[in-house]
Amino acid sequence: MTAGFKEYADVYRKNLLEDVIPFWMKYSPDKEQGGYFTCLDRAGNVFDTDKFIWLQCREVWCFSMLYNKVEQQQEWLDMAIQGADFLRKHGRDKDGNWYFSLTRNGAPIIEAYNIFSDCFAAMAFGQLFQATGNPEYGQIATDTFFNILKRQGNPKGRFNKVFPGTRPLQNFALPMILCNLVLEIEPLLDKQLVEDTISHGIHTVMEVFYQQDTGLILENTTPEGQFSDSFDGRLINPGHGLEAMWFIMDLATRTNDQSLMHKAKDITLNILEYGWDEEHGGIFYFLDIKGAPPQQLEWDQKLWWVHIETIISLLKGYLHTGDPKCLEWFKKVHDYTWSRFPDPKYGEWFGYLNRQGQPLLPLKGGKWKGCFHVPRGLYQCWQTLEAIAAKYEVLSPQS
Amino acid sequence: MTAGFKEYADVYRKNLLEDVIPFWMKYSPDKEQGGYFTCLDRAGNVFDTDKFIWLQCREVWCFSMLYNKVEQQQEWLDMAIQGADFLRKHGRDKDGNWYFSLTRNGAPIIEAYNIFSDCFAAMAFGQLFQATGNPEYGQIATDTFFNILKRQGNPKGRFNKVFPGTRPLQNFALPMILCNLVLEIEPLLDKQLVEDTISHGIHTVMEVFYQQDTGLILENTTPEGQFSDSFDGRLINPGHGLEAMWFIMDLATRTNDQSLMHKAKDITLNILEYGWDEEHGGIFYFLDIKGAPPQQLEWDQKLWWVHIETIISLLKGYLHTGDPKCLEWFKKVHDYTWSRFPDPKYGEWFGYLNRQGQPLLPLKGGKWKGCFHVPRGLYQCWQTLEAIAAKYEVLSPQS
Repeated sequence: MTAGFKEYADVYRKNLLEDVIPFWMKYSPDKEQGGYFTCLDRAGNVFDTDKFIWLQCREVWCFSMLYNKVEQQQEWLDMAIQGADFLRKHGRDKDGNWYFSLTRNGAPIIEAYNIFSDCFAAMAFGQLFQATGNPEYGQIATDTFFNILKRQGNPKGRFNKVFPGTRPLQNFALPMILCNLVLEIEPLLDKQLVEDTISHGIHTVMEVFYQQDTGLILENTTPEGQFSDSFDGRLINPGHGLEAMWFIMDLATRTNDQSLMHKAKDITLNILEYGWDEEHGGIFYFLDIKGAPPQQLEWDQKLWWVHIETIISLLKGYLHTGDPKCLEWFKKVHDYTWSRFPDPKYGEWFGYLNRQGQPLLPLKGGKWKGCFHVPRGLYQCWQTLEAIAAKYEVLSPQS
Repeated sequence: MTAGFKEYADVYRKNLLEDVIPFWMKYSPDKEQGGYFTCLDRAGNVFDTDKFIWLQCREVWCFSMLYNKVEQQQEWLDMAIQGADFLRKHGRDKDGNWYFSLTRNGAPIIEAYNIFSDCFAAMAFGQLFQATGNPEYGQIATDTFFNILKRQGNPKGRFNKVFPGTRPLQNFALPMILCNLVLEIEPLLDKQLVEDTISHGIHTVMEVFYQQDTGLILENTTPEGQFSDSFDGRLINPGHGLEAMWFIMDLATRTNDQSLMHKAKDITLNILEYGWDEEHGGIFYFLDIKGAPPQQLEWDQKLWWVHIETIISLLKGYLHTGDPKCLEWFKKVHDYTWSRFPDPKYGEWFGYLNRQGQPLLPLKGGKWKGCFHVPRGLYQCWQTLEAIAAKYEVLSPQS
């Protein structure tokens, strides 16, 4: 069973370096106006020129990360800097909040209602600061991070449609992302703030949104962490919980917390068993914990990020705990994923499959899919598979 | 070809009076707290108790309309009044704007960001005023109507996320609904205001959003009625355009405008040819006019309201113009619809089918589907089929 980890690692590495990254290098840069095109059809042609801050930031992050962690290639750094310069000039409103989207030439289209724009901006400029040492990038990252902390009590500000007091709910996404973001920009932050943010994040994910009775993570709870029997309260987003588990595993690695590691691995397996589509394979996008019809019409679709994030958690879970169930599930999710998402004809991955596993949209990038989950996931899986090979093939080379 | 209109009329009438209306009468009233349950599973069981203003209003409208137009059944009137009383007590904020949703006992959950709540409230109270003569209901209808006119320049108010000035777009839904609403509450309005609203509505639908070059109706245009090459600007919602065409036909009937009638019939046929799924049958939910991937992940689904509204427009088009293409398409859409949406086992209709035509969600009612499109459509088709039978079977009884 342990044979082949190096071969698996090669699959992820080669897809990253010989297919996915060249695809974005070739089709994504807007050489005239700066920033990136992310709305790319199956063959890489631009079908829309709007610039979504989430995706601009995530692409800056991606090329900076490759430069920092894989190889100091000048073209990767140049690619990151050209996106960052566009963002630095056009991305923020007068209060330093990040817009949601811009026109091709940088005029704001959608206001700063979405705090995840800010999260991905902090990630991007933090990673680029590490690559360049340029203090302006570092300052943007820290300013943005503190602004997120300031806004986190009411992230949507005036755009919040929830009537105050009747049914206050807290959402999983921001605390989950903060668990990852704080490690991304750790060198820029005060040590105590890092520790406090991490322990608060772990507590929130593993004790507030995680529900012991079902072994699942809720997308929304009451402020006290209780279940709310409402559309939002019943919502399960298996991919979100599965992605969060490798963030938690990274935090557990950092402090060598084996109990936390095992808990995150168990939750990974549990969410996956719950979210797997026994009829057609793949992981559902949304489910209702009481089995009621979800309000999300896309509930049964199979999304790229859900599957690659799951593979990361399974591999990290296996690396750190050796649980053979992680390996069984890895092979199952790997096979499902690699036979459907990657597009050998034109490169990169399809993003959206229908329940049956056929492409629902032919795009390689759009309003929500950019140069992020696929390359980050390929990098994480490649590295983790190498580490597994080193750890387990040394122990039992013949098995 | 003309034989059988009476039989078709019977199908629609019987489904309305013996299946759909009894379903809502039985499962929908909240006898303890007032108003209606609309989140009903396949068998009619309540799976969520939230009260969505759109659907509360539409159900008041539906039972008032049946009372006014089909038969003065006291239980229908009682049903309408119990919903209206709940709405009158709990539905509005201090400025008279209608909330989006309430808890079971009437506490506001989602603020009044959605002007369509107000549109359906005006329809509901206008129709109930006609049924009862109660001036309080009439006053609520007119107050709400004038508030809509006041808000129509910026319907979302402070919740509007669009940055001012960069890419202002106007949306089709409100002018389209006003074309129907003004006839609904005509007895309550000044004659000149009715005429002005109608002629403005016809102009906006048929000359601004309708695009002569493609024969299609855009969901969003620039303020000057021009095409915007953006996700919103490229969006086609075939069901919206198809529904709007019978509103326009009703206005053309009112003024005996044959040229407008023919134009609305031609647009109906054109949108339908464009929106029909040649591979699996049925009408797509969303398309991109340039063939780019739409941002709506539910784009390929087949929705109940799209299909029943289309049948209304085809039948009205046939009644008033005699174009045999309306009849051909009627038979095709009728067959698709009746073999998939109605649920003979538990009653009422499925709302959401996947592209292949299988139920995507088992619900009979939810956050957006209530007691409205199915019964209104069944009533409209029944009446129109009777009128077709009277008109054409008299002319050529043997054919």
